[in-house]
Amino acid sequence: MTTESLPMTLPARYYTDPEIFRKEVERFYFGRWICGGRASLIPNPGDYFLCEIADESVIVVRGASGEVRAFYNVCRHRGSRMCTELHGSLPGRRITCPYHAWSYGLDGALLGAPHAERPGFSRADYPLHSIRTEIWEGNVFLHFGTPDQSVAEMLAPVSRKFANWHMAELRTHRRIVYSVKANWKLIVLNYNECLHCPFVHPELNPLTDYLGADNEPPDPAYIGGVMFLRNGAETMSFQGSRNGRSYLPGLTEEQHNWAAFYSIYPNLLLAPHPDYLLTHTLWPKAPNLTEIVCELHFHPDEMARPGFCADDAGGFWDLINRQDWRIVELSQAGIASRAYTPGPYTKREDLLCAFDRDVLAIDGE
Amino acid sequence: MTTESLPMTLPARYYTDPEIFRKEVERFYFGRWICGGRASLIPNPGDYFLCEIADESVIVVRGASGEVRAFYNVCRHRGSRMCTELHGSLPGRRITCPYHAWSYGLDGALLGAPHAERPGFSRADYPLHSIRTEIWEGNVFLHFGTPDQSVAEMLAPVSRKFANWHMAELRTHRRIVYSVKANWKLIVLNYNECLHCPFVHPELNPLTDYLGADNEPPDPAYIGGVMFLRNGAETMSFQGSRNGRSYLPGLTEEQHNWAAFYSIYPNLLLAPHPDYLLTHTLWPKAPNLTEIVCELHFHPDEMARPGFCADDAGGFWDLINRQDWRIVELSQAGIASRAYTPGPYTKREDLLCAFDRDVLAIDGE
Amino acid sequence: MTTESLPMTLPARYYTDPEIFRKEVERFYFGRWICGGRASLIPNPGDYFLCEIADESVIVVRGASGEVRAFYNVCRHRGSRMCTELHGSLPGRRITCPYHAWSYGLDGALLGAPHAERPGFSRADYPLHSIRTEIWEGNVFLHFGTPDQSVAEMLAPVSRKFANWHMAELRTHRRIVYSVKANWKLIVLNYNECLHCPFVHPELNPLTDYLGADNEPPDPAYIGGVMFLRNGAETMSFQGSRNGRSYLPGLTEEQHNWAAFYSIYPNLLLAPHPDYLLTHTLWPKAPNLTEIVCELHFHPDEMARPGFCADDAGGFWDLINRQDWRIVELSQAGIASRAYTPGPYTKREDLLCAFDRDVLAIDGE
Repeated sequence: MTTESLPMTLPARYYTDPEIFRKEVERFYFGRWICGGRASLIPNPGDYFLCEIADESVIVVRGASGEVRAFYNVCRHRGSRMCTELHGSLPGRRITCPYHAWSYGLDGALLGAPHAERPGFSRADYPLHSIRTEIWEGNVFLHFGTPDQSVAEMLAPVSRKFANWHMAELRTHRRIVYSVKANWKLIVLNYNECLHCPFVHPELNPLTDYLGADNEPPDPAYIGGVMFLRNGAETMSFQGSRNGRSYLPGLTEEQHNWAAFYSIYPNLLLAPHPDYLLTHTLWPKAPNLTEIVCELHFHPDEMARPGFCADDAGGFWDLINRQDWRIVELSQAGIASRAYTPGPYTKREDLLCAFDRDVLAIDGE
Repeated sequence: MTTESLPMTLPARYYTDPEIFRKEVERFYFGRWICGGRASLIPNPGDYFLCEIADESVIVVRGASGEVRAFYNVCRHRGSRMCTELHGSLPGRRITCPYHAWSYGLDGALLGAPHAERPGFSRADYPLHSIRTEIWEGNVFLHFGTPDQSVAEMLAPVSRKFANWHMAELRTHRRIVYSVKANWKLIVLNYNECLHCPFVHPELNPLTDYLGADNEPPDPAYIGGVMFLRNGAETMSFQGSRNGRSYLPGLTEEQHNWAAFYSIYPNLLLAPHPDYLLTHTLWPKAPNLTEIVCELHFHPDEMARPGFCADDAGGFWDLINRQDWRIVELSQAGIASRAYTPGPYTKREDLLCAFDRDVLAIDGE
Repeated sequence: MTTESLPMTLPARYYTDPEIFRKEVERFYFGRWICGGRASLIPNPGDYFLCEIADESVIVVRGASGEVRAFYNVCRHRGSRMCTELHGSLPGRRITCPYHAWSYGLDGALLGAPHAERPGFSRADYPLHSIRTEIWEGNVFLHFGTPDQSVAEMLAPVSRKFANWHMAELRTHRRIVYSVKANWKLIVLNYNECLHCPFVHPELNPLTDYLGADNEPPDPAYIGGVMFLRNGAETMSFQGSRNGRSYLPGLTEEQHNWAAFYSIYPNLLLAPHPDYLLTHTLWPKAPNLTEIVCELHFHPDEMARPGFCADDAGGFWDLINRQDWRIVELSQAGIASRAYTPGPYTKREDLLCAFDRDVLAIDGE
């Protein structure tokens, strides 16, 4: 066997070239289902949240009959953004433009357009531009184009695998937003191997064996696997303790002993734990800049219990996150060097090779 | 009548494309008369102010015989900028370069060039590069090329309309500079309709009827109209009171009852009020960034009166300005969306259509 | 003689055009010897410092046998930067990547690559990418390509001229880093004439006659000359006093009476003084942005003397530096004007013409 036959990392341009970045955002983010956030954030008709992808702002809103819809945050009159709060409830269940008070129903229909009425003008011509949505396991997915399949079809194996978690029932307890000076794909790569864990995350070693991962064969829509907890560790948190929290109801004994880490392409990192669900969503801003939203979700019964506290798990992941962001920022800086050449992946980095292959296929380079 | 026949807003590229922006600055700002500031700021020979347009710095200076001249702020020796204070008086009535002390007269002639004398060198070869000026109603206009007509000719109808204001006699009382994340043309559009007033400026409603504007037919050099004050309102200020100030001398009874809002292309917004003159000048910095200088000018007799105070008018306009800048920034953000498409103008936005037509004509797109 | 025959400054594009800048950095910085810093900063095996040129980070390290080597700061595995402190000592005399602990010897050889061993993988295939080094007079020079000649050959005349300074023996006392909004070449131009001194540096006049420079004929590798100290001035410092410091050992009486200012292309400004050595290194960041490292170096015996103080010299040069940076920033701004045209050099600016000719030759424009 020769050196040539080793799988190698991608050329630098995939992490630095603005044109490849532009295409990649177009294809990966505007051309596939992406995860916008949790549906439980908007329980009642008229509740909404915004999500921003590249220069786009999207209003995700709960409709009158409980359905979730999404619209571009762009008034059909003079183009103004309408909602400005990241999260809220729409007065009168209408989206109203602050500029000239054009107002739209929760289904996007133009309901009012002061002084606009004249021959040739019809409100029916100016509904909000809508974006397709689908709720999967409590997450609102968005598609800016026309999907080939539903999220439910695409992620059926993941649904089955984590059915016992009843992820849709969980509620968000903690949310932290990070701005990381690295390409979004370096964050996916970092997420999918624990070979770096002993060096980057000394706090992980007492909780899991970094060689103890059990990865699934890669799927076109995701990659991932499980990590077994060491004897004595109950979950991933400071000291590995659940800190009085119950296991999530419905898990088997075996499911008490591991945490899973799945990258759902392109932007959802999904990590079911014995007593909570950890998610990251990735929002590319530039070839070398990504915004990351990290959330921890718990069972509502647990959250309602007096004395509920999850600072041990939240603080733990904030620490691990920051260690990862530092190292991916160093990766980004080094890969930008004229001296960088693709390097050899080890056997422990097979998921990364699979992701790189998917990137090449989708980037069409 | 079909939808197609409605006048529509411009495509997004006119507000976002760097190349269109570059051409537009070239044609609108470097190819036409622009307003640099008030001549009364430099009453005495050697007084000067700087104005910056794009990357250019211009020295506007009062000459020995009282004439106003303008020069590029670039030394003919090694190219250094010479004046650095925004406003001041030149020592010895010379523009002196701080690098090697080349010095120039108020007419731009090179007067001193230490150690430069040698065969082949003649001071006459190195005067400052000059820029054409004209004073119109107390405002210094600049032309970086060769004008087709004088400002006086171009704006004769405006001069006639506001002759009673004797604008040249007014003096600047208050100046505020804003940096607004929006294309300069969105600020012109915002200025030329009051349809947004009930929603954006609740404080305006007691003072004027937002439907009570009387617009002139558009002129190639400007657009504008008057707004009538409501009964009880004396001017535009908090509470609509003149706060003890006299009307400007020379106004008719009828002229006590309105304020006018004129956009003199490209960068002067001129607003005669019963007791003051309000001006804005617009300085494009990027497709989505504009610096705005807002000034209020009063009669010198009034300003000399003991107890003169104009905080009511100044504070009022600062509030109205900030409300406008917020909404044009939302416009800019929304227009940059891939979902934005031109929207239908209402009848109350006729001046905006006229401006858009002028933009298309001058941009030559 | 006509105006045309006067030597003129370069066209603006050499100071503003991003493409010319890119080429120039490639040719001047990545295609020639550049000065990275003082070898005395890393006395022991495993000591290192980083230097950054454009987007590159370079590790300069003292090897086991005392030799100085340089490597790109890029791990051969996944490309991460490895060293992050500007200056330090490597634990275990190894460069270890913080990501997956690949480790390299002081000669760049890959010594450890956890979990990487498998058929087809050989550590010998993945040494660090190295950069050629040479020590000249105590300065570490770097060459990113293949040099035509050694630094010693290239700078032999400078070595001879300043042999009595024994520059390699001197030690760094003070280091200040500046960020200057000007093209790096404007800093070289500013350094090579004192015509600006009376206007920019009033504090210099009591110490030297600005017309008293004695310039060498330009060399392809450097330009420079000496400035004689006025009677009563012992060195360049506040009040011109050595503040109790001895002259550097080995200087002649005559060498007590001047300071020299040499631009070693492209980035070392070398200024031997009677009691210290002043150096600047220039690090281009953008057409209009340069980072400058200024250091003062003294004799170790002098530095070891109780009560040694050099604030008079250090503070003096900090003042002079800041005066220069302000004026080159004004130059940069003015040269960017559409009105800028090349201006006539005076006889006192002959070195600048020589430098400009070298720039044109190397830029190949």
